[in-house]
Amino acid sequence: MVPTIDRSVFRDLSYGLYIVTSKDEDRMNGQIVNTVIQVTSEPPRIAVIINKKNYTHELIVKSKVFSASVLDESAPMAFFGPFGFRSGRDFDKLSKISFQEGITGCPLITEHALSVLEAEVIDQVDLGTHTVFIGNVVRSEVLNEGTPLTYQYHKVLKGKSPPNAPTFEAKK
Amino acid sequence: MVPTIDRSVFRDLSYGLYIVTSKDEDRMNGQIVNTVIQVTSEPPRIAVIINKKNYTHELIVKSKVFSASVLDESAPMAFFGPFGFRSGRDFDKLSKISFQEGITGCPLITEHALSVLEAEVIDQVDLGTHTVFIGNVVRSEVLNEGTPLTYQYHKVLKGKSPPNAPTFEAKK
Repeated sequence: MVPTIDRSVFRDLSYGLYIVTSKDEDRMNGQIVNTVIQVTSEPPRIAVIINKKNYTHELIVKSKVFSASVLDESAPMAFFGPFGFRSGRDFDKLSKISFQEGITGCPLITEHALSVLEAEVIDQVDLGTHTVFIGNVVRSEVLNEGTPLTYQYHKVLKGKSPPNAPTFEAKK
Repeated sequence: MVPTIDRSVFRDLSYGLYIVTSKDEDRMNGQIVNTVIQVTSEPPRIAVIINKKNYTHELIVKSKVFSASVLDESAPMAFFGPFGFRSGRDFDKLSKISFQEGITGCPLITEHALSVLEAEVIDQVDLGTHTVFIGNVVRSEVLNEGTPLTYQYHKVLKGKSPPNAPTFEAKK
C-alpha cells in the first residue's frame, strides 16, 4: 500500500451550505461557508472554518461573534453566489438584501434561510490557511420549514468552490 | 429579540456519514461519525469530532491516527448501524466485516464505501464532551464511483442520532 493522496476523495465529503456573517463596530460582512457543524450538544456549540484571507475572518477575529444562516434548497445561485465569489472588502454584499441585527450585532440573513444561529467564539484553531472558530450558540431560531441546501460535489454547484474554500481544488 | 436557543435549528445542518476507525497496538475499533470535514486544501487536512466516551476516542488519543471511510448511499442500515449504536468495548465490530490494514495501521472499511482516507493527528481541541481531532491526510484512495450517504435530519435515519453524537438530542 503506497502513501499516495488522491484528492478526488474530498469530492465525496458532504456538507450543508450556509451564509456566515460577522461585524466589527460599523463594519459588517458575510460569506458562503460549507463547513458549519455542530460540535457538542451540551452546551450547544458550533464550529466554522474560515479562510484567513476573507474579510469575514478579520471581523470574527476582532468581534469574536458570528452568525450562520442555513440556506433553503430553493435558494437561487443568483442570491448566494455573490456571498461566495466576491470579497466584502470591495463590495457591500449586504446592500441589496434584507437582514436583521442579531443580539450579537451580527447581520442575520433571513432571505432563503431555514434557520439562523448566533455564536460567541470560545476557541479558535490556527490551521495555516484557515481558522476553526468554535462558538457557544447564544441564540437560534427556526424561520421556515423546508429542506436545507447541501453542498455535494456530485450534485450541487457542479463542483465549483470559491478559491478560499477549504474544499477548493486548483485546476491542474 | 430574545436570547433563546431553539434546538431544532440543529436539524437543519447537513453532514455526510462516515465510519471512522483507529487502533492502538493490537486493539482496533470503528464508529459512525457525521462530522468529518476537510479543513484545509494545502496541505490536505481533515477534522473529525468524537465523543470522549467512545472507544475510538481512546484509541485515537493514544495512537494519533485515524481513518475515515465515506459510505455509499446504498449502504444498508444493517451494515453501518452496529458502528453507531453499540460500543466496541464489549463487541468486536470488525469481526464480521472485511477490512484492510492501512499505512497508519488503522483498519480501512472498504465495504459500501466510496473512498477512504487516513490521517495523522496534528492538533486536538477539548470541547468538554467531545474532542476535535485535526489530522494531516497521509493517504487517500477512491474505491468506487457513486453518491455519498448524507446525514440530514429530514431525510436520513429518521432523525435518530446515537446518544454520543454531537447532534444527539435528548427526548424531552
